[in-house]
Amino acid sequence: MRATILHGPRDIRVEEVPDPRLAATGGGVGRDAIVRVIAACVCGSDLWPYRGVTTPRTPKRIGHEMIAIVEEVAADVSRVRVGDVVIAPFYDCCGECVNCRNGFSTSCREGGSWGGTDHWGLDVDGCQGELVRVPHADGTLTVVDGGLPDEALIPGLLTLSDVFLTGHHAAISANVRPGATVAVVGDGAVGLSGVLAARRLGAERIVAMSRHEPRQRLATAFGATDIVAERGDEGVAILKDMFDGVGPDCVLECVGTKESMDQALRSARPGGQVGFVGVPHGGPELPVRTMFATNVGVRGGVAPVRDYVAELLPEVLDGSIAPGRVFDATFALDDAAEAYAAMDERRAIKSLLRP
Amino acid sequence: MRATILHGPRDIRVEEVPDPRLAATGGGVGRDAIVRVIAACVCGSDLWPYRGVTTPRTPKRIGHEMIAIVEEVAADVSRVRVGDVVIAPFYDCCGECVNCRNGFSTSCREGGSWGGTDHWGLDVDGCQGELVRVPHADGTLTVVDGGLPDEALIPGLLTLSDVFLTGHHAAISANVRPGATVAVVGDGAVGLSGVLAARRLGAERIVAMSRHEPRQRLATAFGATDIVAERGDEGVAILKDMFDGVGPDCVLECVGTKESMDQALRSARPGGQVGFVGVPHGGPELPVRTMFATNVGVRGGVAPVRDYVAELLPEVLDGSIAPGRVFDATFALDDAAEAYAAMDERRAIKSLLRP
Repeated sequence: MRATILHGPRDIRVEEVPDPRLAATGGGVGRDAIVRVIAACVCGSDLWPYRGVTTPRTPKRIGHEMIAIVEEVAADVSRVRVGDVVIAPFYDCCGECVNCRNGFSTSCREGGSWGGTDHWGLDVDGCQGELVRVPHADGTLTVVDGGLPDEALIPGLLTLSDVFLTGHHAAISANVRPGATVAVVGDGAVGLSGVLAARRLGAERIVAMSRHEPRQRLATAFGATDIVAERGDEGVAILKDMFDGVGPDCVLECVGTKESMDQALRSARPGGQVGFVGVPHGGPELPVRTMFATNVGVRGGVAPVRDYVAELLPEVLDGSIAPGRVFDATFALDDAAEAYAAMDERRAIKSLLRP
Repeated sequence: MRATILHGPRDIRVEEVPDPRLAATGGGVGRDAIVRVIAACVCGSDLWPYRGVTTPRTPKRIGHEMIAIVEEVAADVSRVRVGDVVIAPFYDCCGECVNCRNGFSTSCREGGSWGGTDHWGLDVDGCQGELVRVPHADGTLTVVDGGLPDEALIPGLLTLSDVFLTGHHAAISANVRPGATVAVVGDGAVGLSGVLAARRLGAERIVAMSRHEPRQRLATAFGATDIVAERGDEGVAILKDMFDGVGPDCVLECVGTKESMDQALRSARPGGQVGFVGVPHGGPELPVRTMFATNVGVRGGVAPVRDYVAELLPEVLDGSIAPGRVFDATFALDDAAEAYAAMDERRAIKSLLRP
């Protein structure tokens, strides 16, 4: 089968790799599924190694978002069946351990990562490919009732693999509630998803911090009531002015740099809350004295999207939300290099890949 | 009148100072009260300058907790009346600005601090003295209905000035709810208050981290179900073992050192919450990558106690909670030096001062 492989900075290739097989060794034996990818995509976090900001061991299989059809299941898989259309979160999880039960399946005690290894050390495929071995199939996969969905629904379903639910996690972590005032730092696909999530949770006013016209348009379509293009001190001052001189209740940090977290922390009103989902890169640690003085809380991290899918899936299927609009470019798997370049160069908000 | 003055490390003296007078200049004119202190006390945070860990400009008036009787009010004071018994928070606040309305009166836009200056730059008395000028009397002071309380209630009422409600703020910030599992880092008066607050909020299991037998006893009396004497790696490992191998839902950080915050962050389960009220001293900043990986949130800071008094006062008055038990030593104001030394040397949990 074919799959994307990262060979080094800005060097993504689609190559022939062995088809995955059900695990024959390790504690996960009997619990795998093999799935055929319907749609995958490129994540903002894939751009960190693509750009060489992080330097994983290469060549590396890559991609962690997919919807797929189940082709084969191992002996002990009972919930997921051959032919099911499934959504995978950006990690695998058992669904049974204390952390999974607590709603933080990202901390599954048997969890692993796509393109890395499973809990028992076996290689796992990346999701930007034709086939993927899924450890803990029953715990990991959410079945989409009704079989193969309309083409129009595929982008939306794919966002439940990571991007929309990561934005949702930012909003949940920032304590967005009906009537809340919200600012979203970051106008990438996650930030835009955060706007949609905040609107869905009943925020009264949502400021999208964006200086890119196509993203501003999508933010507005997703429910942003205001757009602020300024950043840094100027952006903070404008936000404070907009909200009684003190800033909004909730700030969603959806970038992961020193500058974005600093902006988020300084923008929230005293007693407000920052929800952060940007993978922290290159920044310093959080300024605890400032947090102490202002009572601004910080919460968030790697989004337990598997725990959110069941709640959000019906709204995607019935069209009440359309988070798939973050995909503004679709590529054949063979054109993965162009899919990455389009996002890297900000020609695309988010690239969808079809094997 | 007499008041305590800090002259330098471990040099606290009670000296004759001018009686305070209603402000005659500044934006606060007409809004002051002069109160006569019934009881004041020494705070753990007073020990930082006392020990020379922080070095304020000296000589410095000190003390920020009191209950008092109103002796005089300025022209525009309407809610507070001469003869009222009042509880002051450890700061003054207008009660009307957006931050006060949001429940974060510690960020009052006109706030000031005892022993420092008011919002308009006028000196304000410390609370360890006979008389105190109170800016924003209507916003700052809570009136205790029924006049002068029984002697037995005075310690409990005094804890509503800071210590008990700071522990309460730690518990609120840590998201303690009915059924929650809780660990409290710090067995000072604030930590012990945090135990009582967590119990009152319905925590199912509360671990007090303490290695001092008298404090362990009070923790148990306040509702701790378990005592752990170990600290550092060993303490973290024991806590994780106690709670499904992952740690408790909520951790109250009530010390303010690098070590205590580190212990708190490492002890909470994935997706758990640290509530912190220890004034940050000497520590590094918060490790954002660890927080990202574990989804442990951090929230807290300088406790908006004024906003909590109305809720907790009835329970102190009717005896359903007895937070005043944190006071295990009482001194005449003239013996303030001994009151400080007793806390500094851990002979007392908390020292009460009677002018």
